[in-house]
Amino acid sequence: MVATPQDIRTAEGTDDDPAGGLPETPFLLVDRARVERNIERLRSRLRQLGVGLRPHVKTAKSVDVARLLFDGGTGPITVSTLREADAFAAHGFTDILYAVGLAPHKLGRVVAAHRAGVDLQVTIDSVTQAEAVAAVADSGVRIPAFIEVDCDGHRGGVRPGDPTAVRIAEVLERGGAEARGVLVHAGGSYHSRSRKELVAAAEHERASAVRVAEDLRGAGFAAPVVSVGSTPTAHAAEDLRGVTEVRAGNFVFFDLVMAGIGVCDVDDLAMSVVTTVIGHQPEKGWIITDGGWMATSRDRGTASQPVDQGYGLVARLDGPLYPDLVMTDASQEHGTLTIRKGSRAALPELPVGTQVRVLPIHACATAAQHDVYQVLQPGTGTIGSVWSRLRGW
Amino acid sequence: MVATPQDIRTAEGTDDDPAGGLPETPFLLVDRARVERNIERLRSRLRQLGVGLRPHVKTAKSVDVARLLFDGGTGPITVSTLREADAFAAHGFTDILYAVGLAPHKLGRVVAAHRAGVDLQVTIDSVTQAEAVAAVADSGVRIPAFIEVDCDGHRGGVRPGDPTAVRIAEVLERGGAEARGVLVHAGGSYHSRSRKELVAAAEHERASAVRVAEDLRGAGFAAPVVSVGSTPTAHAAEDLRGVTEVRAGNFVFFDLVMAGIGVCDVDDLAMSVVTTVIGHQPEKGWIITDGGWMATSRDRGTASQPVDQGYGLVARLDGPLYPDLVMTDASQEHGTLTIRKGSRAALPELPVGTQVRVLPIHACATAAQHDVYQVLQPGTGTIGSVWSRLRGW
Repeated sequence: MVATPQDIRTAEGTDDDPAGGLPETPFLLVDRARVERNIERLRSRLRQLGVGLRPHVKTAKSVDVARLLFDGGTGPITVSTLREADAFAAHGFTDILYAVGLAPHKLGRVVAAHRAGVDLQVTIDSVTQAEAVAAVADSGVRIPAFIEVDCDGHRGGVRPGDPTAVRIAEVLERGGAEARGVLVHAGGSYHSRSRKELVAAAEHERASAVRVAEDLRGAGFAAPVVSVGSTPTAHAAEDLRGVTEVRAGNFVFFDLVMAGIGVCDVDDLAMSVVTTVIGHQPEKGWIITDGGWMATSRDRGTASQPVDQGYGLVARLDGPLYPDLVMTDASQEHGTLTIRKGSRAALPELPVGTQVRVLPIHACATAAQHDVYQVLQPGTGTIGSVWSRLRGW
Repeated sequence: MVATPQDIRTAEGTDDDPAGGLPETPFLLVDRARVERNIERLRSRLRQLGVGLRPHVKTAKSVDVARLLFDGGTGPITVSTLREADAFAAHGFTDILYAVGLAPHKLGRVVAAHRAGVDLQVTIDSVTQAEAVAAVADSGVRIPAFIEVDCDGHRGGVRPGDPTAVRIAEVLERGGAEARGVLVHAGGSYHSRSRKELVAAAEHERASAVRVAEDLRGAGFAAPVVSVGSTPTAHAAEDLRGVTEVRAGNFVFFDLVMAGIGVCDVDDLAMSVVTTVIGHQPEKGWIITDGGWMATSRDRGTASQPVDQGYGLVARLDGPLYPDLVMTDASQEHGTLTIRKGSRAALPELPVGTQVRVLPIHACATAAQHDVYQVLQPGTGTIGSVWSRLRGW
């Protein structure tokens, strides 16, 4: 059953609710059926490739979403903040990789997590950090650390072939810490322009990680875990020999950046921002809504892609896209919708009060502007539950 | 006394705190002395111009900051969401202008606010909205509405001279609502390139508002309030005849967009994001921190200005800027600091663990990424208090 605007309402909606049962706009709407489809798509791929999934929870930051990834249970996860680590640990997730380079002053929290029974793994790319991690062995906690590998020059990490990786492992293990393995993230894959480039980025990510792992093993370190991943490379990899786990996060929701590089279709996008029309400037061809950058974020990630989707594509409340209607401008609490430049599509008639969905440019950034997800239940067209979200550090 | 890195610590800091008394990075740091100076600067201007201030609380979204604006008490405020209206009303602010075009379904909350004793004023620019506002007069509540005027074609509002303004007032008043006055926001002033342009934008904002107010009065409506404002025009206006109140919000903190158009100096910026160095890529001249766009926002508002400040300028933890050190790239939880292109400044040596301040591009957007402000007390170099922040709708 396709949801209609009249159908999309909270299960608890009452006649007293002036919003007609909908939450106040702007709000985040998640299509649970699409989330489940997106999860199954990646799991199926990784089963074929024979490698495990360690989902990155930084996109959804939601224990509710993470449970869907593990059939209602828990499993290995990746986090971007210690706040996420603490919160997921409190919900039974005890195998956690903190995939952002460690600031040494955060080791106190890492030690506390281990004492609470959490296998919290840290990420480093320098001898200085290795010394700090080793130093806390005095406290009786053996911290497992990943050595970050830089495969494409986009952020941190040691380059494959750099002897620093072995040096870091030596400092870790001699000091009483553990060189758990290597970690690489092909951030450069977000700029791919073809399937061929994506496949090449995935293979380069794999080969870079395996190369450094072999260097470590050649120097006598077990380095059992080889962790790679990004949503684009996870979906493009054709061979993951030597890799033990894949990290990816965005794939649960997808977004227009991912659609723009061909990782998904627009129809796979599982999350949107519901906004209300509050005005018009007919001479300019503008429709104005109550969803500005506070609701969508300021992310303009498609600006450097062949097709600039502004602050997002606009769809009817029940799902189908309005042809070539784009959110082209944003102030804090105002969005401006216009027909894409060069298009012959007509501006739809959307009276004041009409509610629309705006599909996100970058799901991680858009979701971060909200505290909860309103969840469309499969097959009902009804908002049947609310999923939580974390924030902070 | 100038704060030193060693000095900046919470008053409650203890030896057990692995962060050495500082909150976890990234966090928002506010220099209270600068906030007070910025507030006094605008108040002094408006006193000279003989017009009242109705501060926009959407930048700080903090009752603590709003109290500073009223010497510890309350006063007239502007809000961008009904969540702000509700929260400030709960703290005794009862004269509230909701300055975003009204979605009719929100009238239930507006009526509830009036019944709770709050003079909550709404903003409209169409007959449709006026009819919706008038319709709730049946409930016994006379809603005061502002007619939004579009002075520079940047967003919503009726153009000066458009008879729609009078029509809206007629629909309001005949239906039992109140045409409280006119409201204009010179959003175009953010693109000014000189003092002369700022002064012209302020005068145009004033004249546009007064013109429509006079049209309303000529048609028999009292329209007692003429409300104008933006931080650039509030600081540039040389004459505010006919205006009864000025709205401005950003001025409490200022930011690099404001500095870029000459409304303030970089030294006036009262808020920054404190981040920790987590790595280096010496061959590329990169310093990597734990403060990414989740901490700064994705706002790139200076990209269209003569000097692009990236994601922010970088300063020592105790305040002084590092020459030409800019946060030039951001992923979710990583920031990249580099020397500005073309500069001869040397990359400073910032070992892993060093903490720095990143001055914001757009204070409203950066602050929205955080839940609290850590407040540097004047004259002490100590974080002596924590100010709250609201979010949501």
